[in-house]
Amino acid sequence: MTGDQPSVVALGGGHGLFATLTAIRRLTSAITAIVTVADDGGSSGRLRAELGVIPPGDLRMALAALAGDGDSAEVWTRTVQHRFRGTGALAGHSVGNLIIAGLTEVLGDTVAALDELGRVLQLDGRVLPMAQIALTIEADVAGLEADPRVNRAIRGQVAVATTPGQVRRVRLIPSDPPACPEALDAIDNADLVILGPGSWFSSVIPHVLVPELLEALIATQARKVLVLNLAAQPGETAGFSAERHLHVLSQHAPGLAVDHVVIDSGSVPEGRERDHLRRAAKSLGAQVLFADVAEPGTHKHHSGKLASVLATLARRDTDSSGLGGKESASWR
Amino acid sequence: MTGDQPSVVALGGGHGLFATLTAIRRLTSAITAIVTVADDGGSSGRLRAELGVIPPGDLRMALAALAGDGDSAEVWTRTVQHRFRGTGALAGHSVGNLIIAGLTEVLGDTVAALDELGRVLQLDGRVLPMAQIALTIEADVAGLEADPRVNRAIRGQVAVATTPGQVRRVRLIPSDPPACPEALDAIDNADLVILGPGSWFSSVIPHVLVPELLEALIATQARKVLVLNLAAQPGETAGFSAERHLHVLSQHAPGLAVDHVVIDSGSVPEGRERDHLRRAAKSLGAQVLFADVAEPGTHKHHSGKLASVLATLARRDTDSSGLGGKESASWR
Repeated sequence: MTGDQPSVVALGGGHGLFATLTAIRRLTSAITAIVTVADDGGSSGRLRAELGVIPPGDLRMALAALAGDGDSAEVWTRTVQHRFRGTGALAGHSVGNLIIAGLTEVLGDTVAALDELGRVLQLDGRVLPMAQIALTIEADVAGLEADPRVNRAIRGQVAVATTPGQVRRVRLIPSDPPACPEALDAIDNADLVILGPGSWFSSVIPHVLVPELLEALIATQARKVLVLNLAAQPGETAGFSAERHLHVLSQHAPGLAVDHVVIDSGSVPEGRERDHLRRAAKSLGAQVLFADVAEPGTHKHHSGKLASVLATLARRDTDSSGLGGKESASWR
Repeated sequence: MTGDQPSVVALGGGHGLFATLTAIRRLTSAITAIVTVADDGGSSGRLRAELGVIPPGDLRMALAALAGDGDSAEVWTRTVQHRFRGTGALAGHSVGNLIIAGLTEVLGDTVAALDELGRVLQLDGRVLPMAQIALTIEADVAGLEADPRVNRAIRGQVAVATTPGQVRRVRLIPSDPPACPEALDAIDNADLVILGPGSWFSSVIPHVLVPELLEALIATQARKVLVLNLAAQPGETAGFSAERHLHVLSQHAPGLAVDHVVIDSGSVPEGRERDHLRRAAKSLGAQVLFADVAEPGTHKHHSGKLASVLATLARRDTDSSGLGGKESASWR
């Protein structure tokens, strides 16, 4: 705890992490975002290839999610998120990605660069990369050959996220990257650790593939919460059930137990599917919390609804059985 | 005056303006830099062509000259001045130019963008563009044809600055650009206005070619000082005497009077050359102040020496005749 605010760590990337961070900041300003660094597409991919920096796009999104709301912070947040238009050499680059790359080259350190930009954005909390170097995702994918038993290795986040095949397994290259030490400390000192939602194979699972990060997640005393997606991702997890998401995670994270799995009550019908999900959660040591967390008419989380569920889970003194009748959440 | 600090306005661009600003900030923090916006080379030229923004390079240099010295301001100043290396699409772009372009696109206004970046750099004073739009310099240049009486029109700052011919006259395209209103106000309210040093045709004279700016310079009650270069610029002013610099300025700025011309005593030998210079200055209404303002062994101004000369000139109650025996400066 930081003062009377719970310390919350959120792991993920992209829009999923943005949603979680937006929800969490309703509860606390003691937030650490730990962000995937395996993107190889778009502005991030170009910067990574050209300058050799950690791909900044997911880091930039997390900074924007935690930025303050003063006038100056607001202007800088819009600028950081702004993309150059047109058809020239800069088209598609977001200004924030360029700033992160520049600060990193000057300071020689991604964490110092993010802290510095965080100061200008008047950040609630801190944004950290999950590893100290840029990573590459490689996946074993079935269904790309005539013989469905044959897997092919597909390399790169964009390729994995958009494969028409079925992703069986992912790994990182290199396989044992140095974790960010500040990220390990944050997990160690957290009250609540949140994994997901997000692109399962490219934003969520990569975290548990960093050996030091997995060890820290296993060892921490924090309550661990897995937030499932509202809809299966077209491409990498097309057709995946909620249950399958859990199986895949546990297959990639041997030894990792989770306390709670949060899923939108509208995404899984009552009955057999929920039973399957509960069983899958049990194998991770988790109880499933079905709650109304969706923004109506979209596949996005509603930050207020997600915040109120996370608020309950952040309370150290609440054991899960005490949550039974709470609001729209139910533990059965 | 702002409190008991003199309000100083410096007009110029590039390294010349950087030197003046570095000197002025030893005297006052009530500084306004009014900066040329006609560059078409390098990172600035590329941004101007690609995004249609005012070329930011000279503005960025002026910001760096006035940046604060706190830890965070220092990191941001280094980042703003940092250039991406390598051979890719970003190579040669300075991070500050990209930030100014991004802020300008977001805020829709160059002045607001500079003020915002100025806040992060903890600026002493303010940096303003001399016009609200990007300008083009065009020069009549002799000596490019077999017949030396034939002038050719050469367009663009880079082309003018590097022409092997002799620049006779420059003009702006468009010829009557909208001045920056904040710049006009600053000139109107200044105690001291400083023009030069700098590339004569591409950084100094463009200011007096903006009609509203010339009017403001003529009308202001401020003491007006022209700081001459230590060495003739290879290219645009190759072989120009100090006297010739004054003639060229007065030819481009009908009606403009100047109170003082500051020149390094080492650059003009005693005797006839100084007489010529005094005569040329007189046609501008100015007295010549020969002073030791050079950084020994270089063609750059020494900021401490220049500051002490400007300090004397900034004192409203000093009439120039009272300066006679001051330190290394002499009015005869």
